[in-house]
Amino acid sequence: MGLNELVDAIRMLTHAELIDYAGHCSLRRDAGSFFINSGASVRTSLTTADIVAVDLDGTLVEGTARPPLEFPLHAEIYRARPDVRAVMHTHPKWSTLLTMVGVPFRPVFPQGALLGDVPVLDTPLSVNTREMGARAAAALGAGPALLLKSHGAVVVGSDIVQCFALAIYLEENASRQYMAMQIGSPYVFSEAEQEACRARLASPALFRKAWDHYLAKLGH
Amino acid sequence: MGLNELVDAIRMLTHAELIDYAGHCSLRRDAGSFFINSGASVRTSLTTADIVAVDLDGTLVEGTARPPLEFPLHAEIYRARPDVRAVMHTHPKWSTLLTMVGVPFRPVFPQGALLGDVPVLDTPLSVNTREMGARAAAALGAGPALLLKSHGAVVVGSDIVQCFALAIYLEENASRQYMAMQIGSPYVFSEAEQEACRARLASPALFRKAWDHYLAKLGH
Amino acid sequence: MGLNELVDAIRMLTHAELIDYAGHCSLRRDAGSFFINSGASVRTSLTTADIVAVDLDGTLVEGTARPPLEFPLHAEIYRARPDVRAVMHTHPKWSTLLTMVGVPFRPVFPQGALLGDVPVLDTPLSVNTREMGARAAAALGAGPALLLKSHGAVVVGSDIVQCFALAIYLEENASRQYMAMQIGSPYVFSEAEQEACRARLASPALFRKAWDHYLAKLGH
Amino acid sequence: MGLNELVDAIRMLTHAELIDYAGHCSLRRDAGSFFINSGASVRTSLTTADIVAVDLDGTLVEGTARPPLEFPLHAEIYRARPDVRAVMHTHPKWSTLLTMVGVPFRPVFPQGALLGDVPVLDTPLSVNTREMGARAAAALGAGPALLLKSHGAVVVGSDIVQCFALAIYLEENASRQYMAMQIGSPYVFSEAEQEACRARLASPALFRKAWDHYLAKLGH
Repeated sequence: MGLNELVDAIRMLTHAELIDYAGHCSLRRDAGSFFINSGASVRTSLTTADIVAVDLDGTLVEGTARPPLEFPLHAEIYRARPDVRAVMHTHPKWSTLLTMVGVPFRPVFPQGALLGDVPVLDTPLSVNTREMGARAAAALGAGPALLLKSHGAVVVGSDIVQCFALAIYLEENASRQYMAMQIGSPYVFSEAEQEACRARLASPALFRKAWDHYLAKLGH
Repeated sequence: MGLNELVDAIRMLTHAELIDYAGHCSLRRDAGSFFINSGASVRTSLTTADIVAVDLDGTLVEGTARPPLEFPLHAEIYRARPDVRAVMHTHPKWSTLLTMVGVPFRPVFPQGALLGDVPVLDTPLSVNTREMGARAAAALGAGPALLLKSHGAVVVGSDIVQCFALAIYLEENASRQYMAMQIGSPYVFSEAEQEACRARLASPALFRKAWDHYLAKLGH
Repeated sequence: MGLNELVDAIRMLTHAELIDYAGHCSLRRDAGSFFINSGASVRTSLTTADIVAVDLDGTLVEGTARPPLEFPLHAEIYRARPDVRAVMHTHPKWSTLLTMVGVPFRPVFPQGALLGDVPVLDTPLSVNTREMGARAAAALGAGPALLLKSHGAVVVGSDIVQCFALAIYLEENASRQYMAMQIGSPYVFSEAEQEACRARLASPALFRKAWDHYLAKLGH
Repeated sequence: MGLNELVDAIRMLTHAELIDYAGHCSLRRDAGSFFINSGASVRTSLTTADIVAVDLDGTLVEGTARPPLEFPLHAEIYRARPDVRAVMHTHPKWSTLLTMVGVPFRPVFPQGALLGDVPVLDTPLSVNTREMGARAAAALGAGPALLLKSHGAVVVGSDIVQCFALAIYLEENASRQYMAMQIGSPYVFSEAEQEACRARLASPALFRKAWDHYLAKLGH
């Protein structure tokens, strides 16, 4: 069931154009390994057969296809963050635009408060070595998300549904922030407002609602 | 038939992306109660089974699902406005962008004149208490629409079809106002032009035409 | 066959979002009458049964449905322009945005040269009287297109296919002009370049190609 | 099989809106001739029957339909560049917008590094004579792409799959560059970063992945 959810998440992120011909999502398998879509998998027609399992050094432990070259991004986050059970690396348009011009991500709509102020990894290069993965994990720190300059985003969660919802919220907030910047200076939620939003919105039922909404869209 | 229309309205607003994984529409049932889609309902696949009835204090009077947490937004408007028979709370992109940067909504295309100058509730927080609902109802006053800062919109009508058409017109006007602001300063209709537009466009037949247009789109 | 083409043109313009829940296209029937879609017709599901014929004073000569309130826009153009056999009144987003901020339409891409410098009717009010129709026809002059301030566009042609292609080219040029204005000042084709474009592009075969391209899209 | 790939490429580029009612792609047949879609072919419903073969002077050597008027654009590139086996002439929105305002294309996302700094042919006129074709080929030089001012783009490759991927990357990079310019000044990849991107991304397997991604979209 975890693998089905992983596949659904990738398909929904592809349908929502947060993932294109690249991008990968992973699910922790145990302390030392995780499931991830293979490097060559076609995101628009993914099935569980495209999922492999690798250990934190990239050695294949289930499946036969090659893991993506950026597996260290996932591996080093799983190593550094025992609380994380899902990692999604997306190529979201709006979030990335903010990093391209050096504008910090700020919470400008209610769900954005769940992300807070998102750090940026200050290099556009691929995260495909253990050293780069460790840099990304350090930049992520204890937070839910990291932006990769002129490249993409990484979102983590304690389960796939939460991780997916946060990946969607990140991009929705960035989209609104970008759009508002074109005609003025967007209102940034106060600390008290962010706290109120988090108290109300950090709920498994609401994460599931976002998930179900996108799952219904896939049916079209 | 009222409930079918309520469901159609929500489905059309979802298809038009004015409603996403949240958002709710209601229909007055009698002086002290109204129909509304349940909090957990998936907007993309809504049926009349997702509709419940609650009284103005939120007590369920028909159905078993939980009403949305923001029911007080609807309840306090029904309490304050006996003329209102339908309330739609949407999350429209363009209208909300105006509130994020403090730009007032102004009529810049013919149908926009039916909305006039739309007030803004000056808080991004959820309208989920009787007190907040009363604040929103007071801000709405006798008008057809209210914007919620960095959050969304509320549109009211004397029936569902009119309410739906106004919800669409609000967003279309906001979209044009936003877009025009990117390359200049949009022409705002004069009072006389607004009056002429209202005289011509405030017609049940034209509201129905907008409704039928969106209903036909759902068929795709 | 003329009526089928008229219906196809309206359906293609609706699909391309140049026509929404309003908008109408007409075809000259003889010196004193024309075919047009009825006022109440739903553009997304139009058939030849939605077409009526009216004389230049708006008297129904074929069919039973009511002609659109803006029939004088068509009637006065047919009266003033014996060369015109098709008139399309659309609500195109980009072209209208230019009029909202007072930016003149300029040829910035090859097909735009077929429109040249397009005049603007300086009122946002509906063209629903003979007097207003005559003002619009005068503003159009001998040209192929007229913009209606904060309202829409009118394109005329010597046949439906040409008229449709020009309606598409008008909006494509306006879209590019608007988009370019957001990052700079778009290059306007020189008189010699416009002349070269007109010599090459004012061809029935190329108009038909644009038509066939959009017709194929309808099939999706 | 080459012809099937040529047809697929045109259909994918049309679906992605890089090609509209015009635009043509070609495949080298031998030192002195190439395959290309006919001038009148409808891009949205293309089949191999729409492909003809012409020599470098435009004489038909296979098929009966007329080659496009801009065949010299292809012919002169094949004459000047023995390494080129595929040429795609598209009408991409974002790339062309940059040329309309005189903003040079710069690599601002990883795949953009495969294009580098793309030259611009400084005339909006059609490339439909041998002289114009030679000017375009000279402007292209030894590079992978050329922009045509206020008109479109030309991308070349050593095979169809690579050429298609580069055509997509060109437009994706331009889109990001344009969008970022609306809210600031986009970060341009350093020479070292571009070199690292090229080393990683100039791979037949990755070109094929972009191809497969778009091919799967066609299936929808």
